[in-house]
Amino acid sequence: MQAEIITIGDEILIGQIVDTNSAFIGKELNKIGVSVYQITSVQDDKEHILKAFTAAEFNADIVIVTGGLGPTKDDITKHTLAEYFNDTLVQDDTVLAHVEDLFAKYVNTPISDLNRKQALVPSKCKVLQNEFGTAPGMWIEKGDKVFISLPGVPFEMKGLITNQVLPKLQEKYKRPFILHKTILTNGLGESALALRIEAWENNLPEELKLAYLPSLGKVRLRLSIKGFNKETIENIVAREVEKVLPLIEDVFSGFEDNNNSIEQIVAQKLTKENFTIAFAESCTGGKLTEVFTKRQGASNYLKGSLVCYATQSKIDLLGVFEETINKYSVVSEQVAIEMAEQVRQKFNSDIGVSTTGNAGPEKGDSDVEVGTVCIAISTKKEIKSYTFYMGNHREKVINKSVNKVLELLQKEILIN
Amino acid sequence: MQAEIITIGDEILIGQIVDTNSAFIGKELNKIGVSVYQITSVQDDKEHILKAFTAAEFNADIVIVTGGLGPTKDDITKHTLAEYFNDTLVQDDTVLAHVEDLFAKYVNTPISDLNRKQALVPSKCKVLQNEFGTAPGMWIEKGDKVFISLPGVPFEMKGLITNQVLPKLQEKYKRPFILHKTILTNGLGESALALRIEAWENNLPEELKLAYLPSLGKVRLRLSIKGFNKETIENIVAREVEKVLPLIEDVFSGFEDNNNSIEQIVAQKLTKENFTIAFAESCTGGKLTEVFTKRQGASNYLKGSLVCYATQSKIDLLGVFEETINKYSVVSEQVAIEMAEQVRQKFNSDIGVSTTGNAGPEKGDSDVEVGTVCIAISTKKEIKSYTFYMGNHREKVINKSVNKVLELLQKEILIN
Repeated sequence: MQAEIITIGDEILIGQIVDTNSAFIGKELNKIGVSVYQITSVQDDKEHILKAFTAAEFNADIVIVTGGLGPTKDDITKHTLAEYFNDTLVQDDTVLAHVEDLFAKYVNTPISDLNRKQALVPSKCKVLQNEFGTAPGMWIEKGDKVFISLPGVPFEMKGLITNQVLPKLQEKYKRPFILHKTILTNGLGESALALRIEAWENNLPEELKLAYLPSLGKVRLRLSIKGFNKETIENIVAREVEKVLPLIEDVFSGFEDNNNSIEQIVAQKLTKENFTIAFAESCTGGKLTEVFTKRQGASNYLKGSLVCYATQSKIDLLGVFEETINKYSVVSEQVAIEMAEQVRQKFNSDIGVSTTGNAGPEKGDSDVEVGTVCIAISTKKEIKSYTFYMGNHREKVINKSVNKVLELLQKEILIN
Repeated sequence: MQAEIITIGDEILIGQIVDTNSAFIGKELNKIGVSVYQITSVQDDKEHILKAFTAAEFNADIVIVTGGLGPTKDDITKHTLAEYFNDTLVQDDTVLAHVEDLFAKYVNTPISDLNRKQALVPSKCKVLQNEFGTAPGMWIEKGDKVFISLPGVPFEMKGLITNQVLPKLQEKYKRPFILHKTILTNGLGESALALRIEAWENNLPEELKLAYLPSLGKVRLRLSIKGFNKETIENIVAREVEKVLPLIEDVFSGFEDNNNSIEQIVAQKLTKENFTIAFAESCTGGKLTEVFTKRQGASNYLKGSLVCYATQSKIDLLGVFEETINKYSVVSEQVAIEMAEQVRQKFNSDIGVSTTGNAGPEKGDSDVEVGTVCIAISTKKEIKSYTFYMGNHREKVINKSVNKVLELLQKEILIN
């Protein structure tokens, strides 16, 4: 059971946007046992799209196409699909009613013929209603293969994949189980790690695939397996994990869960334990809070945050002692500790977390080296503080700091 | 002059990572007049890679391959390249010396045979020295076509593209100029905008391609053209921009030039005018602040933010009157006004901005409909407030609210 993803749009090929849709679709398909054979990004050009359709139909059982479904002239996916299937476009009344409804509710401009044309679909297709936008998804079968066309707007595409495409694929096809188990390691290089586990790797069962994913001091080891008996493949993976862990005990830092990001794990745990949290963010600048607030249900555990970017705001709003800043510098564990403690008290939360650091590229209000980040976690029982060196690239420093907080929080909350 | 980008790695196809390399490469190639015909992501599988090489050689003049150059068993790009070109791997002494040097400098583990194998390259290739890592880039010519293999680690790939690949391509090929000019608009839907400029669009010269890139309340209009006379194509674009601007005066917000986004325009204006700003974020949950703090130089104008997510924190920390909340509901312009005013005073900034709304999916502490968002902007001179309906999808409500604030801020600051 193989799928190919085709993303349509010059904006991808000229690098005006990064294609994040394919990763989402790939991950979701894997969860229901569908492998992605290839991802192909093509231009807004009819001949090129037709060529990609032909190749994909040859390679895969399921072809998922995103993009090119807007109302303007440069959107040609629908017409190209109709041509590929020797079909014509017909009006779908449910889609039209939905478009009219959306316009009545949210848009100030009157509905136009362009908007009405969103209701035109190939006559052979089954319409997948798009809850969040005007362009419907389309499902067209050809023999035992299926083409699925989805809008490129990420949240519209996601809604359609989750609510319509996955259930329909599960119903239509018998699929194996795909299991990925990713072991996280820290502090040992890729090749040193490979040598360390060489004997184990050489003796892995043939159906188990091992991949090394190195990234800035971390190496992820991914074990992948496919099979129709879920228990069998789970046992094979469990057995091999059990064998390898003692070899990498000193660098092992956990597992990457397929379905659960670390923020999801933390959010679930906070909700379950009825813990509340508040953040005092300096160098992470709101990103840490946003990681949680973008998820629904954040109000169950998040009291709020103070982004005290300017040093003076740490004193005035958060209540950090000016003497602490003067004595230890604004990027110091002492300041981080006061920030975490103060934010916890001010928001009356169970946990207070702080970040203070220098993300660069220039040194700010502190003389510490660019990339230095201090983090503190305060609970009613204790305060812990840490210092890290996150490198010399602003985006990297911010994101690494957010990841580090999540990692520390996970350990903290799971232990307590 | 066409290129194809091939990215190798199961981690892309299973959605474990998002392929950001291709966007970077696409953008850089466009700058030197090379169009990207297709981006193809394939599995770590020899037969599949060989098939992709064959197809790419047929479609394109330049084939850029990323990934699969690590030292471990799952990295097979180099061997597959050698097979494709009927070649063998030989040791490159300069690469070996570089690997040894890197290990001596940065790595604690001793250099191993695996690391030494990084110095093996196809005998027909020209080595592109990788300043930032152990895997060299490789340049292999076949007739007037060229295959370029690069490591998948983004900063290593970027270094090689910028310092070696682009100069060599410029030397080898005669290339046209590619010009993209992107007009930013705010506040008018894609189809309404299309109708507004229909006559202009219909009369565009054939060599000029127009694309609509809609995203949550913003639409970008991209004009693309290719030609060997730089001045000619620049004039064609300038002439058409001059014609269209009067038609969209009320929604035009600038041009996108190498990331000249609306937040950058706002940030530049704040910096230039010496204005400071503070945010009181409820429904946007830190995202608004993060949009600014992820950019360098934010400390020039950003005092800080309060993410008062829980209603009680709006009262306790921000100083919103409980009566106002009780009387008008927590999602109301009255509350937004107090939030903006209070945050401006508390942070002692020139501008205070607030968001309060219900991003859904469930109604929170307010009875207003999901998607309702109130925004206020307070300056020393005046306070303005607004109410919008942002739809029924959490991510969309948050991001549309952020875009709306940026739009309002731009207008506000540019006028004042």
